[in-house]
Amino acid sequence: MKPINIGLMGVGTVGGGTATVLKRNAEEISRRAGREIRLFMAANRDLARAREVVGDGVPLVDDAFQVVNHPEVDIVVELIGGDTIAKELVLKAIDNGKHVVTANKKLLAMHGNEIFARAQEKGVMVAFEAAVAGGIPIIKALREGLSANRIEWLAGIINGTSNFILSEMREKGADFGDVLKEAQALGYAEADPTFDVEGHDAGHKLTIMAAIAFGIPMNFDNCYLEGISQLEGKDIQYAEELGYRVKLLGLTRRTAAGVELRVHPTLIPEDQLIANVNGVMNAVLVRGDAIGQALFNGPGAGALPTASAVVADIVDVARLLTSDPEHRVPHLAFQPDQLQNLPILPMGEVVSSYYLRIQAADRAGVMADITRLLAENNISIEALIQKGSATDGSAEIVILTHRVVEKSANKAIAAIEALDSVAGKVVRLRMEELNG
Amino acid sequence: MKPINIGLMGVGTVGGGTATVLKRNAEEISRRAGREIRLFMAANRDLARAREVVGDGVPLVDDAFQVVNHPEVDIVVELIGGDTIAKELVLKAIDNGKHVVTANKKLLAMHGNEIFARAQEKGVMVAFEAAVAGGIPIIKALREGLSANRIEWLAGIINGTSNFILSEMREKGADFGDVLKEAQALGYAEADPTFDVEGHDAGHKLTIMAAIAFGIPMNFDNCYLEGISQLEGKDIQYAEELGYRVKLLGLTRRTAAGVELRVHPTLIPEDQLIANVNGVMNAVLVRGDAIGQALFNGPGAGALPTASAVVADIVDVARLLTSDPEHRVPHLAFQPDQLQNLPILPMGEVVSSYYLRIQAADRAGVMADITRLLAENNISIEALIQKGSATDGSAEIVILTHRVVEKSANKAIAAIEALDSVAGKVVRLRMEELNG
Repeated sequence: MKPINIGLMGVGTVGGGTATVLKRNAEEISRRAGREIRLFMAANRDLARAREVVGDGVPLVDDAFQVVNHPEVDIVVELIGGDTIAKELVLKAIDNGKHVVTANKKLLAMHGNEIFARAQEKGVMVAFEAAVAGGIPIIKALREGLSANRIEWLAGIINGTSNFILSEMREKGADFGDVLKEAQALGYAEADPTFDVEGHDAGHKLTIMAAIAFGIPMNFDNCYLEGISQLEGKDIQYAEELGYRVKLLGLTRRTAAGVELRVHPTLIPEDQLIANVNGVMNAVLVRGDAIGQALFNGPGAGALPTASAVVADIVDVARLLTSDPEHRVPHLAFQPDQLQNLPILPMGEVVSSYYLRIQAADRAGVMADITRLLAENNISIEALIQKGSATDGSAEIVILTHRVVEKSANKAIAAIEALDSVAGKVVRLRMEELNG
Repeated sequence: MKPINIGLMGVGTVGGGTATVLKRNAEEISRRAGREIRLFMAANRDLARAREVVGDGVPLVDDAFQVVNHPEVDIVVELIGGDTIAKELVLKAIDNGKHVVTANKKLLAMHGNEIFARAQEKGVMVAFEAAVAGGIPIIKALREGLSANRIEWLAGIINGTSNFILSEMREKGADFGDVLKEAQALGYAEADPTFDVEGHDAGHKLTIMAAIAFGIPMNFDNCYLEGISQLEGKDIQYAEELGYRVKLLGLTRRTAAGVELRVHPTLIPEDQLIANVNGVMNAVLVRGDAIGQALFNGPGAGALPTASAVVADIVDVARLLTSDPEHRVPHLAFQPDQLQNLPILPMGEVVSSYYLRIQAADRAGVMADITRLLAENNISIEALIQKGSATDGSAEIVILTHRVVEKSANKAIAAIEALDSVAGKVVRLRMEELNG
């Protein structure tokens, strides 16, 4: 059978990994795919760097439009990133009738609806396993492996940088700022870490998974984002004393009122396997009505793990290249005319339990005031620790609450903060048992 | 589009679960598959029981051949089990040009080569996600999700009964016999538990995964099987003191000399996520050259989890129903003409490290004799504990060794057992770091 020609756009970390895997495992891959898959051409702004990576024998161009416009390219692999030039290139490739493989989570979370509609219209495939959780085949699991299920919720540790920082904070009892510097030195965090540590990256990935899990359009604009930069080491320690680990979790859940779509630091019981996923590893826990719970764990980033997903997508597309569109797996798991525009639940309507840390004057009546305010907002207490007074005569009160709607928690917190005997803001973290 | 007609054979636990999922999630499933998938007819020896499960409106027969011979059945679902009548039915279905979905690990591990060859010849699909690790989509992960990788090894907790027993033995410090009774009372173990606790079931599943991972034929006859019935509670406790958990692991690894294919109780470092998979849960850890390590965890048995895999296969087959065979995923991941007949390594050639427990007289020179015999066989010691003498004046010596080829370990063990000062057999468990 005729070889499949790959046009690679972007020869950075993942692009380089993809070239390596295609070359190193060429024989293994063609034994699986039934035909040769070859790197036909590559585009990169820095041609010298790209030449080092792809070696001789692969034509290089510095204008990626030459790739999407080349008549002999069968599959365009977009590893440039971002949603400006990458979007133009992907749409042009689709218009040219080429199949696309991409690792670009931002592009899909922001413009996926437009891109998939165009791909559907043109009868081409856009594959994106590498966009979520690196090498872990979670898109395939959600879209195909769990297709018998009504997915109820999923929760993921889907940002390796944040998970590395949280793991180190716990192990070393260190604060965010110190560990961030270490992560930057190790190359696990960017010079500007905002995108990772403030939850944007996790939000993009969560948006994509929610679409596939529930059959809804991409809805990143309504995704609640709260990062880890405000976390203090002592909250991670108190959580541990109470039997919990703190993870930056992306969580999406189907409820009668709408879909929860939220990224925030979360207390998880330490006996949950996902609570023990440490360092730069990723994991996604899926709850379906038939399977119960399944956990998918592996490296969420890096050249070769991400290339593993890119090349698996290439093999998938190669296998289905000549099939008619109606027999392919739909981009968003559900048939395009079967997507449902479910509302995304505002954060105030989400039901959760909470970890609260309150800095209070160590005097009679404080505890009575706090517990009264919680009770007035229908919040019941699961656990409470009063931490020994600090030298300044103030005490730390740590409370775990039972489940309550977030707007009630907000009201109670505001009232507690307004007490004369309470200093500063109440620290509030959400808790998830993940046992539903 | 025309609905897909399912012919279900066997309405037991998994068959009942399959009927339930197809009915309950009919809308969700057809939103994904793009067409209705309906239970068209079912066969069961006990018609009354089957009627209770499938409800009215589904024609029932007591002769499964009526299902495989019915002209309107598109996909035959074989949930009878075993390799006698089930084999006849599957081959007949294939001959009749029907696609087959099965959960029958024994059938495939023993007769998969014949069945897949026949299916290839007739141009039909035989899907078997449910045959391994229940609802976990591990077949799909190995065959498609990790298709970019040269798979190096995989290790699985793939028998829930054994894992439940081992988890309870550890938690309660109990012995095998007592926990087995508990497992039987809970319905987690059969009245005759041999198939589960002696490793046959795990061996079937491992054989199937090895074929897909490496592109080799099914080779169950050469799979090494050692179960958990001889395990003593104290070895689990000593292992824990040394930082390990004991799991019944199915392990297959590609080496230069051949493929390791073995099921046996195994010490795993407790900081490995898979070491913390407890109760009836299953997990498979896969090592590929691109992805590194990925772990897949979930329920390995039960009506609905297994039905999750059966119905996912049905959706897959429905999507590819009209595609030509060369564009489908090959049964064993690699194209049929690309399978390699790699030799299975005899157990004596496998390299491993060992946990040894030796009952010795508590007198001078014993330790010197033992360590000399180990040294003579090129076995170096990683850790050694001498347990306080028992009342009879004997001592227990627990040794962790470094890696050595099994035939050398066997020689050393035989020589140690021949010492006058050593009583009874040496207890030997294999250790795997799983960090390669």
